[in-house]
Amino acid sequence: MIVIQGVNEMVKILAVNAGSSTLKWKLFEMPSEEELAEGLVDRLGQPKGNIKVKYGDHQVYRDDKPVANFGEAVASVMENLKSLGLVKELHEIVGIGHRVVAGGEEFTESTVVDDDVLLKIQNLRDYAPLHNPVEAQYIDVFRKMMPWATEVAVFDTAFHQTMDPENFLYSIPYKYYKEYGARKYGAHGTSVRYVSKRTAEFLGKDVKDLKTVVMHLGSGSSITAVQGGKSVDTSMGFTPLAGITMSTRSGDIDFSLVAYLMKKLDIGLDEMLHILNHDSGVLGISELSQDQRDLKEVEFDNPQAKLALNIYANRAAKYVAGYASVMDGIDVLVFTGGVGENSDEMRGQIIDKLHFLGAGIDDAVNKASHGVEVDLSSKDAKIKTLLIPTNEELMIVRDVFERL
Amino acid sequence: MIVIQGVNEMVKILAVNAGSSTLKWKLFEMPSEEELAEGLVDRLGQPKGNIKVKYGDHQVYRDDKPVANFGEAVASVMENLKSLGLVKELHEIVGIGHRVVAGGEEFTESTVVDDDVLLKIQNLRDYAPLHNPVEAQYIDVFRKMMPWATEVAVFDTAFHQTMDPENFLYSIPYKYYKEYGARKYGAHGTSVRYVSKRTAEFLGKDVKDLKTVVMHLGSGSSITAVQGGKSVDTSMGFTPLAGITMSTRSGDIDFSLVAYLMKKLDIGLDEMLHILNHDSGVLGISELSQDQRDLKEVEFDNPQAKLALNIYANRAAKYVAGYASVMDGIDVLVFTGGVGENSDEMRGQIIDKLHFLGAGIDDAVNKASHGVEVDLSSKDAKIKTLLIPTNEELMIVRDVFERL
Repeated sequence: MIVIQGVNEMVKILAVNAGSSTLKWKLFEMPSEEELAEGLVDRLGQPKGNIKVKYGDHQVYRDDKPVANFGEAVASVMENLKSLGLVKELHEIVGIGHRVVAGGEEFTESTVVDDDVLLKIQNLRDYAPLHNPVEAQYIDVFRKMMPWATEVAVFDTAFHQTMDPENFLYSIPYKYYKEYGARKYGAHGTSVRYVSKRTAEFLGKDVKDLKTVVMHLGSGSSITAVQGGKSVDTSMGFTPLAGITMSTRSGDIDFSLVAYLMKKLDIGLDEMLHILNHDSGVLGISELSQDQRDLKEVEFDNPQAKLALNIYANRAAKYVAGYASVMDGIDVLVFTGGVGENSDEMRGQIIDKLHFLGAGIDDAVNKASHGVEVDLSSKDAKIKTLLIPTNEELMIVRDVFERL
Repeated sequence: MIVIQGVNEMVKILAVNAGSSTLKWKLFEMPSEEELAEGLVDRLGQPKGNIKVKYGDHQVYRDDKPVANFGEAVASVMENLKSLGLVKELHEIVGIGHRVVAGGEEFTESTVVDDDVLLKIQNLRDYAPLHNPVEAQYIDVFRKMMPWATEVAVFDTAFHQTMDPENFLYSIPYKYYKEYGARKYGAHGTSVRYVSKRTAEFLGKDVKDLKTVVMHLGSGSSITAVQGGKSVDTSMGFTPLAGITMSTRSGDIDFSLVAYLMKKLDIGLDEMLHILNHDSGVLGISELSQDQRDLKEVEFDNPQAKLALNIYANRAAKYVAGYASVMDGIDVLVFTGGVGENSDEMRGQIIDKLHFLGAGIDDAVNKASHGVEVDLSSKDAKIKTLLIPTNEELMIVRDVFERL
C-alpha cells in the first residue's frame, strides 16, 4: 500500500440516523471501511431508556438508564464510545454523517453543515415534518458537543435530484410546483446510490452503461430506475407514502377514495395520513402483521395474508415494468433492503411477473441466498437479476470522508 | 337473409348519456345498427336552452327555447323525434339504454331497470355523486314518459368487475373494502368492451387468445389490460380521477402532497377535489389548454406545453408497460378515444416508449390515420398496434337489443 502523507492514518467517522425517540449510530474506521460498532439510544423521555451497543467480537452492551432529551442521548453515545474503548479520546472521531430525510431541491448531494445549511434543513420541515426538525436538532447538538468534527448532512432525496421534470412533476397546476415545491422527491436515495454503484462493480461494468432497476424492499419500499448511474425515476413521491405497497404504508391510492373515506369516517387530514402511513400496506390488507415472514407462515390457511403478499409483488412488478418504458429497457434488476435481501419467496414472486422482460432466476441459488452479494439470474435469462445488500451507513461515512 | 318471425322487423333504440345540465342521445335502428340521429339538450335551467339534432343527410336542427328541468328535456327529445320524422310514433322506440357511471359490485353487466335496480343505482351515489343521482332521475323520467320502452342501465364499471382482488384492492385496511366498498372500480368499461371485442374481430382472432391493452385516450383517459376478453386491470380507480394524466384530471398523486397543499392553500376536500378534477392534467401543467391540439401548436416555443404532452405520454406508457407484468406480456396495443383516434403525434410519442415490448408503428400509416380502424404496426413489430375508434352508444343499444 502506498502511504500518502495525511491519508495513511486511519480516522473514525460516525454515521447517525436520528428519530424523535431513537438515535441510531454506526462507527467506522476509514478509509479501511471497517465497521467498529453500532449502537442505539431508544425510548427518549420514558422512565426507562434503552441503550445498546454491539462491538468487537459479538459483544453487546446494554443499559436502561433514562434518557431525557437529545443532549443526553448524544452524551450517552459519547460516554459509551469511551467507556467501551471504541475510541481512546473522542477527538479521534473527525467526522459525523447525518441522515436527513428531506433535502428538497436545495441539496443535490451530501453537504458539510454550517449555520446556513442547518437553517435550510430546518426550513425544509414541511416536506418531512416528523424528520427534518429532529435531524436538524441532533446536528445542532452534535456540533455543540463535538465541535471538532466535520458534520455532513446526507440526504435521502439527493440522489433523485437528477430526475427530469417529465418524471418528477405531478399533473397538477404548475404554480404549485413553483410556489410550494410540489413535486416528486423520492427517498432511499443513499441506499439506491450505494446499491447501483455496487451493481456495476459486481458486474465489472461501467455504471454509465447500465440500465438498472433497484428494488429497495424493506419496511419502507421503493423502486428506482437508475440509468447511467443517475436516478431517472422512483416510486416514492413528495413523501415516502407513495409508490408500491409497503409494510404499513399504502403506496398509491386514488385521492377521491381518500376523500370519500375521510367523510365516511369523519376524520381529518392528519388522522387519515396516520392510517395510510401506519395501518395500511401489508398490515392493512392482511389484518395480521406488517412482517412478511408472519404472513408467509400462514398464507395457505389465511387468504388475506396471501392476498397481501400477492398485492405486494404485483405492485412492485408493475413499477419495475413501468420503468422499462422510462429507460427503453432494463439490463439489471437488483433486490436490496430487509425483504429484498432475505425473502427468497418474495423475490421469486416478483420475478415471476417479469418473465416478459427476459428476467429469470435460478431457484436453487435464490433459495440459498440471503444477505449476500450474488447473481440470482437463471442461465437462460436475458437480463440480470442480482441480490446486493445495501449499506447506507457506509455510503454516509464515505461521503463524510470525501469531504474531510 | 333468413327472416325469423319477430326479428325481421327493425326496431328503434335510444342510447342516453345524461349529465346535470346536458342530455345527449343517439337513435339506432336494430339489428341493422344504423345510426339514425344524434341529439343534445343543453343549458338546462338557463334563460336560453340549446337543443340540437343531427339526422338524415347531414341535416341539423337547432332550437334555443328554454328547458327548465329533466322532464322538459325528455319531452323536447320526444317532440324532436316526431317532428323531424325520425319516428312516426314514439312506440317505435322499444328500448332505451342509459349510461350509468357507477355500478359498484352490484352490477357486473347491463341490467333491465325495475324499481329495485333504480333504487340500487341511487344507493350507489356515494361512488359518483355528480352522476348516479342525475342518471337515476333521468331513468325515472323516461320510464314515466315512455312507459312502453324497456329501460336498460349500462354501467361504466361493469366490464371491470372481472378484476381479481390482487388488482382491484388498495393497500389500506381491509375493513374499508368490506364496510365502504373502498376498491378500484375503473371506468370507460363500455368503450373498452366494444374496442377489445372489435380488436379480436379485426385481427380475425378469438378474444380468448388475446392479451390486449386498450388505451382510451380522450378528455378522460384510461389504460386497461384485457386478457381473454376480460378486464384484468385498469388505471382509473375508485373514481375516474386516478391513473394517467388526463385533460384536466391529475391522475395518480401522493396523498401526502395533497394534504400538504390543502394546508398551504387552506382549502377543504371538495375544493381540492375540484382542483384535481378540473384544473389539473395537461391543462394544469401547461397553464394553457386542456386540448392537446393547442399544446401541439406551440410546443416548440412553450416548454410547459411540451412538458404537458411529454408527461401525458410518459404516464400512459408506464401504465401500459406495467400491464405487461400483469398479463405476462402483451399481444396488441389499441388506441381509441378522441386523442387516441386523432392524435398521430401522441400515438407516436407513446409507442416510442414501448419499443422494449416489441411495439412499433409505421409512421406513414400512423400519420395518415384518424378515426378509422387500421393496423398501425410496422413490419418488424413483434406486437400489434391498432387504431380502433370506440362506439359506446352502439354497445349500449346492442345491450338493450339483447335484453328486449
